[in-house]
Amino acid sequence: MTDLPRGKFITLEGGEGVGKSTNLRFITQWLDARGIDFVQTREPGGTPLAEQLRTLLLEKRDEAVDPTAELLMVFAARAQHLSRVILPALAAGKWVVCDRFTDATYAYQGGGRGLDRALIGELEQTVQGDLRPDRVLLLDLDPVIGLQRAASTGEADRFESEQQVFFEKVRAAYRERAEAAPSRYAVIDAAKSLPEVQQQLAQVLEAIAAAHG
Amino acid sequence: MTDLPRGKFITLEGGEGVGKSTNLRFITQWLDARGIDFVQTREPGGTPLAEQLRTLLLEKRDEAVDPTAELLMVFAARAQHLSRVILPALAAGKWVVCDRFTDATYAYQGGGRGLDRALIGELEQTVQGDLRPDRVLLLDLDPVIGLQRAASTGEADRFESEQQVFFEKVRAAYRERAEAAPSRYAVIDAAKSLPEVQQQLAQVLEAIAAAHG
Ligand SMILES: Nc1ncnc2c1ncn2[C@@H]1O[C@H](COP(=O)(O)OP(=O)(O)OP(=O)(O)O)[C@@H](O)[C@H]1O
Ligand SMILES: Nc1ncnc2c1ncn2[C@@H]1O[C@H](COP(=O)(O)OP(=O)(O)OP(=O)(O)O)[C@@H](O)[C@H]1O
Ligand SMILES: [Mg+2]
Ligand SMILES: [Mg+2]
Repeated sequence: MTDLPRGKFITLEGGEGVGKSTNLRFITQWLDARGIDFVQTREPGGTPLAEQLRTLLLEKRDEAVDPTAELLMVFAARAQHLSRVILPALAAGKWVVCDRFTDATYAYQGGGRGLDRALIGELEQTVQGDLRPDRVLLLDLDPVIGLQRAASTGEADRFESEQQVFFEKVRAAYRERAEAAPSRYAVIDAAKSLPEVQQQLAQVLEAIAAAHG
Repeated sequence: MTDLPRGKFITLEGGEGVGKSTNLRFITQWLDARGIDFVQTREPGGTPLAEQLRTLLLEKRDEAVDPTAELLMVFAARAQHLSRVILPALAAGKWVVCDRFTDATYAYQGGGRGLDRALIGELEQTVQGDLRPDRVLLLDLDPVIGLQRAASTGEADRFESEQQVFFEKVRAAYRERAEAAPSRYAVIDAAKSLPEVQQQLAQVLEAIAAAHG
């Protein structure tokens, strides 16, 4: 018996309404069409406990939430998600396609809230060890357009209720991370039409699958 | 105008059923009788969000909980509790009397679950800065007796459902911490009758209040 190759770990990132969920469906169809076994999941969330933490994180509340408390909740959910879902799937040779992951923490809690990046890095190392996404698909978009797109899909949550400047910082933090490690990021112009976005995505997926084979 | 002296921060610690809640009432009556302004609170919990995290931590669930996820949830609740309740009260010159605090994390997640003490120490520093309880009242008791006492008060939660060996480790970890810093801990023999326990507590409280004055 030979070991299965470890599956690929792909994350979808970007601000509100950039098209993460829409394009996740495109990606899973692409994987299905090629017979690649995968797990589709999201953060914060992905297990019953982690989804309960997601609810606590997203719901609007009268109580001001301490930024460090928020950060620790995000990583608590992530630790649970990794141990119960992501690591077992990768070890079984499956791809994992995840709607948001640790780049979102750097963007929202780091960029948006202004928390120390070094602290985020320590928690990342504690919770993930050396695991990092094989490829981050960053849908880059002017937040004004993203929020307009997202506005059509229900009431604003605690993050969506932030100010314009918050979302500008989120976008800048995402782009900064992509620029610092260009080989791990695919920056996709999400202002383009959906067919054009998906054409870009398909090219990236082909490259990842080729590296896989 | 002179600054108020910072209030005293007192925590009550010990395993299941040692008498923390019972003696918290004794302590608050003692403080009331002396006209000392205080806030009574508990961990995990003490704010609406932190109490929601407490519910997630304590409820029994089918899903195995990753120990690191548990640890991060505990410190998330603590960060929230500190910023919203404990720090403002101390800054206003009030005493804070708290049913469990970070010693419980060292005892349960460190001793009981076997998590790295250095990691707990890093999170403690991140969340608390230099804040430590002025005095830890450790109610020390054979866990067999404590669990018998606690058994009368409703269904067992996720921690109370642990095995005997878990509680032995919790007790040992508490005692170890008290031995390492005897000036900050008052170890109280909780096997004694309630009046005897409270006599011991009253002596400790007198000493703390004297140091305060
Ligand atoms: N390239 C595109 N051009 C125009 N509209 C798009 C494009 N991509 C997605 N949309 C639309 O934008 C809206 C938001 O998309 P989607 O829910 O996929 O974003 P999201 O990134 O998952 O948002 P959220 O951060 O709220 O989860 C949807 O109505 C979707 O159909
Ligand atoms: N010294 C004592 N002798 C005998 N019984 C006691 C003593 N102290 C407390 N008890 C009883 O033990 C039971 C548990 O006490 P209590 O609820 O105060 O413990 P606790 O430490 O708060 O427990 P938990 O960890 O479950 O919160 C109660 O019924 C209480 O009356
Ligand atoms: Mg979405
Ligand atoms: Mg109690």
